[in-house]
Amino acid sequence: MTGKPNTIRTAILGASGYTGAELLRFLTRHPGYDIRALTAERQAGKPIDAVYPHLGGMGLPDLVKVEDVDFSGIDAVFCGLPHGTTQEIIQALPAHVKIVDLSADFRLEDGETYAEWYGHPHRAPELQKEAVYGLTEMYRDAIRAARLVANPGCYTTTAELPLMPLLRAGAISTEDIIIDAKSGVSGAGRALKESMLFAEASEGIHAYGIAGHRHRPEIEQELSKAAGQPVEVSFTPHLMPMNRGILATIYVRLADGRTPGDLRDTLANHYANEAFVRVLPAGAVPATRHVRGSNHCLIGVSETGLRGRAVIVSVLDNLVKGASGQAIQNMNLMVDFDETSGLENAPVFP
Amino acid sequence: MTGKPNTIRTAILGASGYTGAELLRFLTRHPGYDIRALTAERQAGKPIDAVYPHLGGMGLPDLVKVEDVDFSGIDAVFCGLPHGTTQEIIQALPAHVKIVDLSADFRLEDGETYAEWYGHPHRAPELQKEAVYGLTEMYRDAIRAARLVANPGCYTTTAELPLMPLLRAGAISTEDIIIDAKSGVSGAGRALKESMLFAEASEGIHAYGIAGHRHRPEIEQELSKAAGQPVEVSFTPHLMPMNRGILATIYVRLADGRTPGDLRDTLANHYANEAFVRVLPAGAVPATRHVRGSNHCLIGVSETGLRGRAVIVSVLDNLVKGASGQAIQNMNLMVDFDETSGLENAPVFP
Amino acid sequence: MTGKPNTIRTAILGASGYTGAELLRFLTRHPGYDIRALTAERQAGKPIDAVYPHLGGMGLPDLVKVEDVDFSGIDAVFCGLPHGTTQEIIQALPAHVKIVDLSADFRLEDGETYAEWYGHPHRAPELQKEAVYGLTEMYRDAIRAARLVANPGCYTTTAELPLMPLLRAGAISTEDIIIDAKSGVSGAGRALKESMLFAEASEGIHAYGIAGHRHRPEIEQELSKAAGQPVEVSFTPHLMPMNRGILATIYVRLADGRTPGDLRDTLANHYANEAFVRVLPAGAVPATRHVRGSNHCLIGVSETGLRGRAVIVSVLDNLVKGASGQAIQNMNLMVDFDETSGLENAPVFP
Amino acid sequence: MTGKPNTIRTAILGASGYTGAELLRFLTRHPGYDIRALTAERQAGKPIDAVYPHLGGMGLPDLVKVEDVDFSGIDAVFCGLPHGTTQEIIQALPAHVKIVDLSADFRLEDGETYAEWYGHPHRAPELQKEAVYGLTEMYRDAIRAARLVANPGCYTTTAELPLMPLLRAGAISTEDIIIDAKSGVSGAGRALKESMLFAEASEGIHAYGIAGHRHRPEIEQELSKAAGQPVEVSFTPHLMPMNRGILATIYVRLADGRTPGDLRDTLANHYANEAFVRVLPAGAVPATRHVRGSNHCLIGVSETGLRGRAVIVSVLDNLVKGASGQAIQNMNLMVDFDETSGLENAPVFP
Repeated sequence: MTGKPNTIRTAILGASGYTGAELLRFLTRHPGYDIRALTAERQAGKPIDAVYPHLGGMGLPDLVKVEDVDFSGIDAVFCGLPHGTTQEIIQALPAHVKIVDLSADFRLEDGETYAEWYGHPHRAPELQKEAVYGLTEMYRDAIRAARLVANPGCYTTTAELPLMPLLRAGAISTEDIIIDAKSGVSGAGRALKESMLFAEASEGIHAYGIAGHRHRPEIEQELSKAAGQPVEVSFTPHLMPMNRGILATIYVRLADGRTPGDLRDTLANHYANEAFVRVLPAGAVPATRHVRGSNHCLIGVSETGLRGRAVIVSVLDNLVKGASGQAIQNMNLMVDFDETSGLENAPVFP
Repeated sequence: MTGKPNTIRTAILGASGYTGAELLRFLTRHPGYDIRALTAERQAGKPIDAVYPHLGGMGLPDLVKVEDVDFSGIDAVFCGLPHGTTQEIIQALPAHVKIVDLSADFRLEDGETYAEWYGHPHRAPELQKEAVYGLTEMYRDAIRAARLVANPGCYTTTAELPLMPLLRAGAISTEDIIIDAKSGVSGAGRALKESMLFAEASEGIHAYGIAGHRHRPEIEQELSKAAGQPVEVSFTPHLMPMNRGILATIYVRLADGRTPGDLRDTLANHYANEAFVRVLPAGAVPATRHVRGSNHCLIGVSETGLRGRAVIVSVLDNLVKGASGQAIQNMNLMVDFDETSGLENAPVFP
Repeated sequence: MTGKPNTIRTAILGASGYTGAELLRFLTRHPGYDIRALTAERQAGKPIDAVYPHLGGMGLPDLVKVEDVDFSGIDAVFCGLPHGTTQEIIQALPAHVKIVDLSADFRLEDGETYAEWYGHPHRAPELQKEAVYGLTEMYRDAIRAARLVANPGCYTTTAELPLMPLLRAGAISTEDIIIDAKSGVSGAGRALKESMLFAEASEGIHAYGIAGHRHRPEIEQELSKAAGQPVEVSFTPHLMPMNRGILATIYVRLADGRTPGDLRDTLANHYANEAFVRVLPAGAVPATRHVRGSNHCLIGVSETGLRGRAVIVSVLDNLVKGASGQAIQNMNLMVDFDETSGLENAPVFP
Repeated sequence: MTGKPNTIRTAILGASGYTGAELLRFLTRHPGYDIRALTAERQAGKPIDAVYPHLGGMGLPDLVKVEDVDFSGIDAVFCGLPHGTTQEIIQALPAHVKIVDLSADFRLEDGETYAEWYGHPHRAPELQKEAVYGLTEMYRDAIRAARLVANPGCYTTTAELPLMPLLRAGAISTEDIIIDAKSGVSGAGRALKESMLFAEASEGIHAYGIAGHRHRPEIEQELSKAAGQPVEVSFTPHLMPMNRGILATIYVRLADGRTPGDLRDTLANHYANEAFVRVLPAGAVPATRHVRGSNHCLIGVSETGLRGRAVIVSVLDNLVKGASGQAIQNMNLMVDFDETSGLENAPVFP
């Protein structure tokens, strides 16, 4: 795949994780990106199909260490490295390189909040200020002009896409927002943890990180910006036996005089011209299996048993719109490609 | 299995459903019950292993029609028939027979509420008044004296076990109770529905019955009794890819001055002597896989991001404590057996 | 999607089945096909997202009855109708229409064999003679010239791709070929069967059709043609809990002097220039998850404990290379498109 | 659970593995065993519910190191330690202790075969000679008299139960026995391996250990004893997405004049009085889900497309009859309990 003319010379840092594999699934079909380097520290020296057999036979470069990449010949970097190390590696990249970072390192805009949730001061505070939050549908213009985009978390994207337009429109209360989220296992990555073994994760569900998941401050930051005032939320993630998908059931308090139908209309109008966000008609139910493998987000709004409240259900594929798909969507803007190019895949069902 | 002396002669009506099979899993190991009749309308005439191969070789009687059972030789009936027909069949049973009904027919105490949610007036209103609601831990004495017990729904048991003691104790507000429930597929029974096909139900999650699931009025009836005033709830069930298990994530508002730890203490004290309900210490997370196949219910209480609120997580096996196990627990009381007898099975993990 | 210039005007008959949905997943991204008609008898009149929500928002035509399609404006038909009715509907299509039939109706070349396995004489014997068997890699030239292609079965494709070149080359014995196949559930289609319920199909495996699955005579027909003499096989399919994928473990007797390595070399040479069939090096193990969602087939050859024998493992996605993907591959040839166009999707993992 | 009179004082070595948990599931309901010690090297000092939350609240002793167990007060040991270390620990146990070893350390009777497959000479050759192979239905008398029983492997039990009686009876050829086995993931234990992650093991199947799985010499040892002559087999295990269960599809060559029906009769007669092995009538299909959680083995025999051959399907739960259940069955014999006591659980379905 080397040497396509007029293409964006691309490196994927941290290619051995699931987000790396997912980037490759899309980029290998995208005519505009030329994959020049794939990095993976412990697997350096191996061909990509040693870690991802399904990516064999596609002419991809072998895995190397980050330090062995010549970034002078690279235009675009997708960075899927662990939180923490990311800051230092991105800081060392040459200025001409455009970067979409899939880690959490640059998502929080406030240095103190970062330090509180991550346990250490930020190591690249200048970049932290420069980074643009990559929720494409909300920050499209800023992303287009950015050099460094902080790609949002999977849970956060699922919650923010329905909530931000409603808060901006004053259609819901800023108080008492409850986000009950259910995720497939791939969001946890490929690391070896007992709770991720098939025998432990299948045939069951449990909540985790109830008291404090790191996606909560990220959600609160964005909802606060949308509302123009501080917003706090209750956020409870659950792990369930599927590979891909997040479903967030969101309980909101209606602003005075609003109905669940009003919320649906507000969202439908807001997203009418978006390629990847679809607001379903009354009665239709979003299901994660209807977005699997695609960059789509589906949103539904329903009544509930409690007066003055509505239930919003939002679904997406955590590896696509929740990670690698949105990353490509952002990079497409940054390098002046059609925003949807390479992401037109229909969902894979069943 | 015929002819054990001093045993309860038992019939299972509707033995071809999953609750029927689950009753047999426990009763075949219980020395006190002698299975005399198994009914199944369309499968009448067949041996039980024609519908449940895993129950072959146990000497169980063949399936017959209800009308072909001689109830004069039956002491106890477990009734797992569809909603609606149940009323008429139970009304026709002789007075000496003790009955645990697993359908929803006798759970709602108020005739009008029944008619509203089920679309027709109740056909056995006298029995509706007589029936005792079978949440064992709450109504043990009444159950012991009852002839007809209405076994609670699976979702409702999961929600009521933590919420009723808290409402009785005034530890939580009666307002703004939000129940987000996730269920495995066996709760829907063995009927052929497209949404229950493996290819449709696996690898995904969706909400259903958001606007009005029939377990909501049942929950509200019991919570209102516990609170001594009308309680309304938001109840959203979800279907997810596992066979057994319900997890309810319940968002409650604390009563003035209470903390999540107080709620945990209240529940721990309340259930201290119960064999099947266990309140976990702070930080421990209930998971459905830790109760699979057993009559256990596990409850945890946590803080959440919103002040004045707590998150309660409750899990059980919908076919056991949520149906057949609790049914046997109730019948044990009614026929004066040890309440836990036959239900001592440890969970099946993995 | 109407009115693209220079495109193949296309109808999908039986679009409400899984193979129909899968055809649409690929064809909606293929610039060369213009989807003009989708048929579904019972669902006629509905939009496609009433049966497949994941295909909403793509501008596809509503479902109609076959009799309501104006085939004068159709160039290409993909036929995914049930076995039996297919014959009559295809016979009634105008002569200018090119057809890939995904049913079993035209796969068996011998009328008597057809009648024996399907219980009635063929109703379109002339077409049966005309039809070209659509195992693309084996019959590419004939397919290119065909008007009617009988797309192979999913099990048969998995078995024939490794076995036919070996039999042609005389590298294995024609005797004692044992095919042990494991399939995901989507191969059974979307019909309501108890054995296909999640609660019945998950967490287990069983064999079916041991004495006589209809794919056996199809396999034997093709292997006999490849060997130049009658070949009989033992074929045992199993149903297992996954959505997509077939893995065939094939036990063969080596021809005199051949080793498992020779078999691997024969296959590797044979498929060296194929885009969709990949022969793995010694020691690498084909897994269905490495082909999921793609048109790929992976083949491995190993030694076994018995002298003079080898084990071949072959995997593909039953809905893609085993059905809709191969159907498009064939139609691409018939309408003179690049054979691989629209089928370049990398596998979806995890 | 301390201090029951007239009970067998029992220790479980390696209680933190799945076989340990499964032993406890059965033993906690068995009135005859008093659990005095549970060992786990790395988890020593923790309560059992720190590693198995589903076993909390049962009054079990905390985990300790093996060296901290006082074996003078122990009558029976179940040993579920890793292969290799087992030998030395068992060698150090006092002579009065009865032992069922669930590892592979004492299954192979021949020292050279052991060294060949495990890479080092046996470290307790005297015990290797003394150990009795614990396939209960075959070696019941020897087991009853034994001090040390080597509990068979899960694959081997699945294959040996149908094959040994047929070989003894001369009903099948000793040549050309092909065993295609499919296993759930719990057979691999709780160790952290990438291939066992949910995201890697779900939605797929693959073969492994084709060239040489360590259960092959064990199978060949037992089949050879049954046949009275050396028997070699082809054995191919597969890993598939379920927690529990093994299904072996076994292809055999009929002895002269025998039919598949003869094989079925031979097995049905042989196992007529066995509590845990059931031979199904013609046409019935064994499924792993029909034995889940129970000590049952189901066997079916069918015709196949090849003359002179039959297909045998055998299923069991790898953690029960394939490990912990059979271990208790053996210990029951060794301590003179009813062989089936504590193992009467019906299968858990769905």
